[in-house]
Amino acid sequence: MRIVLGENRYGKAETRLVRVDRGADAHHVTDLTVTTALAGDLARTHLTGDNSGVLPTDTQKNTVFAFARDGIGDVESFALRLARHFVDTVPTVHRARVHIDAHSWDRVAVGGAPSHHSFRRAAGTRCATVTVDGDATHVVSGVDDLVLMNTTDSQFHGFLRDSYTTLPEATDRILATAVSARWRHGSADAPADGWSTAFDDALRNLVEAFADTPSLSLQQTLYAMGERVLTHRVELCEVRLALPNKHHFLVDLAPFGLDNPGEVFFAPDRPYGLIEGTVLRDDAAPAEIAW
Amino acid sequence: MRIVLGENRYGKAETRLVRVDRGADAHHVTDLTVTTALAGDLARTHLTGDNSGVLPTDTQKNTVFAFARDGIGDVESFALRLARHFVDTVPTVHRARVHIDAHSWDRVAVGGAPSHHSFRRAAGTRCATVTVDGDATHVVSGVDDLVLMNTTDSQFHGFLRDSYTTLPEATDRILATAVSARWRHGSADAPADGWSTAFDDALRNLVEAFADTPSLSLQQTLYAMGERVLTHRVELCEVRLALPNKHHFLVDLAPFGLDNPGEVFFAPDRPYGLIEGTVLRDDAAPAEIAW
Amino acid sequence: MRIVLGENRYGKAETRLVRVDRGADAHHVTDLTVTTALAGDLARTHLTGDNSGVLPTDTQKNTVFAFARDGIGDVESFALRLARHFVDTVPTVHRARVHIDAHSWDRVAVGGAPSHHSFRRAAGTRCATVTVDGDATHVVSGVDDLVLMNTTDSQFHGFLRDSYTTLPEATDRILATAVSARWRHGSADAPADGWSTAFDDALRNLVEAFADTPSLSLQQTLYAMGERVLTHRVELCEVRLALPNKHHFLVDLAPFGLDNPGEVFFAPDRPYGLIEGTVLRDDAAPAEIAW
Amino acid sequence: MRIVLGENRYGKAETRLVRVDRGADAHHVTDLTVTTALAGDLARTHLTGDNSGVLPTDTQKNTVFAFARDGIGDVESFALRLARHFVDTVPTVHRARVHIDAHSWDRVAVGGAPSHHSFRRAAGTRCATVTVDGDATHVVSGVDDLVLMNTTDSQFHGFLRDSYTTLPEATDRILATAVSARWRHGSADAPADGWSTAFDDALRNLVEAFADTPSLSLQQTLYAMGERVLTHRVELCEVRLALPNKHHFLVDLAPFGLDNPGEVFFAPDRPYGLIEGTVLRDDAAPAEIAW
Repeated sequence: MRIVLGENRYGKAETRLVRVDRGADAHHVTDLTVTTALAGDLARTHLTGDNSGVLPTDTQKNTVFAFARDGIGDVESFALRLARHFVDTVPTVHRARVHIDAHSWDRVAVGGAPSHHSFRRAAGTRCATVTVDGDATHVVSGVDDLVLMNTTDSQFHGFLRDSYTTLPEATDRILATAVSARWRHGSADAPADGWSTAFDDALRNLVEAFADTPSLSLQQTLYAMGERVLTHRVELCEVRLALPNKHHFLVDLAPFGLDNPGEVFFAPDRPYGLIEGTVLRDDAAPAEIAW
Repeated sequence: MRIVLGENRYGKAETRLVRVDRGADAHHVTDLTVTTALAGDLARTHLTGDNSGVLPTDTQKNTVFAFARDGIGDVESFALRLARHFVDTVPTVHRARVHIDAHSWDRVAVGGAPSHHSFRRAAGTRCATVTVDGDATHVVSGVDDLVLMNTTDSQFHGFLRDSYTTLPEATDRILATAVSARWRHGSADAPADGWSTAFDDALRNLVEAFADTPSLSLQQTLYAMGERVLTHRVELCEVRLALPNKHHFLVDLAPFGLDNPGEVFFAPDRPYGLIEGTVLRDDAAPAEIAW
Repeated sequence: MRIVLGENRYGKAETRLVRVDRGADAHHVTDLTVTTALAGDLARTHLTGDNSGVLPTDTQKNTVFAFARDGIGDVESFALRLARHFVDTVPTVHRARVHIDAHSWDRVAVGGAPSHHSFRRAAGTRCATVTVDGDATHVVSGVDDLVLMNTTDSQFHGFLRDSYTTLPEATDRILATAVSARWRHGSADAPADGWSTAFDDALRNLVEAFADTPSLSLQQTLYAMGERVLTHRVELCEVRLALPNKHHFLVDLAPFGLDNPGEVFFAPDRPYGLIEGTVLRDDAAPAEIAW
Repeated sequence: MRIVLGENRYGKAETRLVRVDRGADAHHVTDLTVTTALAGDLARTHLTGDNSGVLPTDTQKNTVFAFARDGIGDVESFALRLARHFVDTVPTVHRARVHIDAHSWDRVAVGGAPSHHSFRRAAGTRCATVTVDGDATHVVSGVDDLVLMNTTDSQFHGFLRDSYTTLPEATDRILATAVSARWRHGSADAPADGWSTAFDDALRNLVEAFADTPSLSLQQTLYAMGERVLTHRVELCEVRLALPNKHHFLVDLAPFGLDNPGEVFFAPDRPYGLIEGTVLRDDAAPAEIAW
């Protein structure tokens, strides 16, 4: 009944890195938030304060900046370079997880033409999480802050009722959510069309499945989104989705002598439904990773 | 040396209203956060708790929803309807301020065609603030959460130095800001091209002035932005801008044997510069309003 | 109908400064967020990009850190030192506003005794805003993030009704708010009992007035809070309060065969009431400042 | 290579529940944010939209409110009641996770005496997470938003250096963190001294271990915190801690002719170190739960 150290990891969270590529024709901006986490033979620092095996988190941050000097490329590639570096060069580190959020910028138009060096921040965050664990490498891509709404073609009825159920059946409701999606690649090699085209295509499939699936429940929509992505992207083996059900309640205008034929809604912040699910190929190899 | 009640107002803040217009060809979404504030003969509730002159904030919220039943239209128009209603119908209310944030949604594409009823939240918030004060009416339009970046054509040098100054002169820096802009209309009548076209045009001018003004200081850019809007929109009399200077610091890579020719930057959160200014026509009538 | 520059100011926002006083018996922590804003003869940088009159915001940040080397003392004193420095030493600067948020830390107990050097962050932020405008100096103290609740002794009835009013009268409700309070000193000299004792006393009076005022409206509570502070603190001339009415709605449990005698409440985030008001002495000299 | 549904769950997130106990001598407030998540035979709603096995999230919210009518008691007890209810009464549900955040309120003093019914929100959030999985029940207690600082007795040196390491060795630094801690109970029965006394004691041990452990690394402090809790609370089997290293950098005042003997610090927001670790008894039975 001794007390012992269990799983542990450490790293530098949320390093804000911006890189400018000054192309002849136009500048390009890469705007990232990078988080590194390392694990391995780290018991000594926990048990005795012997730091001889601890690469400082400050060094991890420096490495992020230094590696950016050579160019960043796709976020999956950059995360792979960093994670492999830590596992390959730090003797005590057996496992590295690098998570990158890539913030979106659109090129501004000036006088109708695309600007050379002016940008506007757009909605949506592309992300990549690479885990290198000894010889195994896992790549997960994904998206956050993707807020979607269907104003019709969503129903919810025929559900289980108990003595605490008061919800009326809905045959036409608003369906809104803030998608948090992650998709795992079957291999650490870049897809044939490249990481970024693959990302765009997965994202397009996610959004289109949300938009054109007649929905009997948000669960059904979730499964359709995951299935659509896996159907179109053969290199992927697993999709995980977390979909808050951002409720829109029809306002009762009867006290004011008004009807409300599906037009005026109140959108509360909390509580909200939260639907979480995994869609995968039945032959997907399991991966012990922090998503 | 008596203690007395001074300026006061009250209202309902941040009512979340979503309206769906179910057009034959396509649905349209209006997603607003509405804040009302009323002032007038309200001393009794403060001094004695006599509420006979107090229209409840709950009623103000109800009014927002009920008025939306007839259609919302431009946010300036909706704010005008609401503000005038409170001043015209509530005997104790002499002044009403209605502020609306309009959240942006883009229509999703499915199979290359615009969707009938699916939308994605976009960056940027259009806002309108209407103040009705007795017979006077003031309309202010604006934008928040407009994050812009120029990767070159920005300098900052020749500044005042004292014994606490260590900043090096910069002849080529990143200029980034999150624009908060407000522009005051000379009249409460809609511009000739309508509130929404006028908004789009003002916004375009703001962004283009940011993008194509070679900048010697963020102050110079601020003035150029305000001047550009006033030059192109004759119905406007005053522009107010708050521009945080979102610093991007070149990372010193020399310790790692690397140069850094304007490519790798660190983007801290705080502190940040904050440049605030007003640009106006010299014949603009003053307006005693809360912007 | 020329376009001209109107009011403007610039500065460094949210410099995060922590100072440790290493007393023989115990350490003391001062944890501040400091914002400076300067105004004066600054037209040239706006109009031509000539920065010769612009003390960089980076220098303002340096000044904050350098001045802290001598000790910080009360936040009002520190803000006064900084604001006077900028107006006295920068030729172009005629007006300086320094706003400080002081974050609260409690000393931790270890084995029942107060720790020498360990602290825990507490709720509530004390703040001070000093404006030096030529020869005039204005000091405002205040508090933010002071969240208070009364579970009884609050009513709201007898209010104005119109055709949009559905709110029932309440004879016993929860009253909850997040106080944002500012109180203006009649002089820039420290109160007889010192800035910090004066702050503690004003805060105590605010809280006690909230707690022991039987409330017929949040407006009545607001006035009582301001009046109590002014009654007890003769050096103050004006109190401004912004009180969100954080609604707590009694949940209707009847569908589950249960009554609800004032016990179970739902606390939504938005919308909320917002009551704002000023209480002042009738001989208070006006102050043209940004609160 | 079929596409299949993997792990999934759904529930109502962040129901805001406030309960007032109107004791004869004093009122008591319980202020909770409750999140429920259910899993089981839910494939049909995902695959076909057949909702006959889906208890609506709205019903889960109703259940939270209805159960509060009987009194809440300790948050662990309330979470146990709710989780068992869902598993026991909903045929399709085999597993329920209920997470509760309990927001802290202090009783206000009026005239030196504790108020009967007035409260002030305090820092720190106590939490409980109960997972009922078939016959197995797991109880985790914890705390969030516990921000701690030591102004001395923290060092960091002797660490691993590579070509990206520039960090100087520190023999006296500020150590600050925002503790997120979870401790797992070996049994679902209440500790002998009750859930709340046990919580207070665990929290006290956490804080005291942070305060009186001379620290050679934040990892060492983390382990000491977990070990201290397990040593004093025999009913616990595992402690998990996430400790951001909230850096405080000594400001270089030399450019202003000043030294800085450990007094003036800059506290950036990002990046920050993040140290995560588990401390457990070596005979702790594993628990497959979402912490």
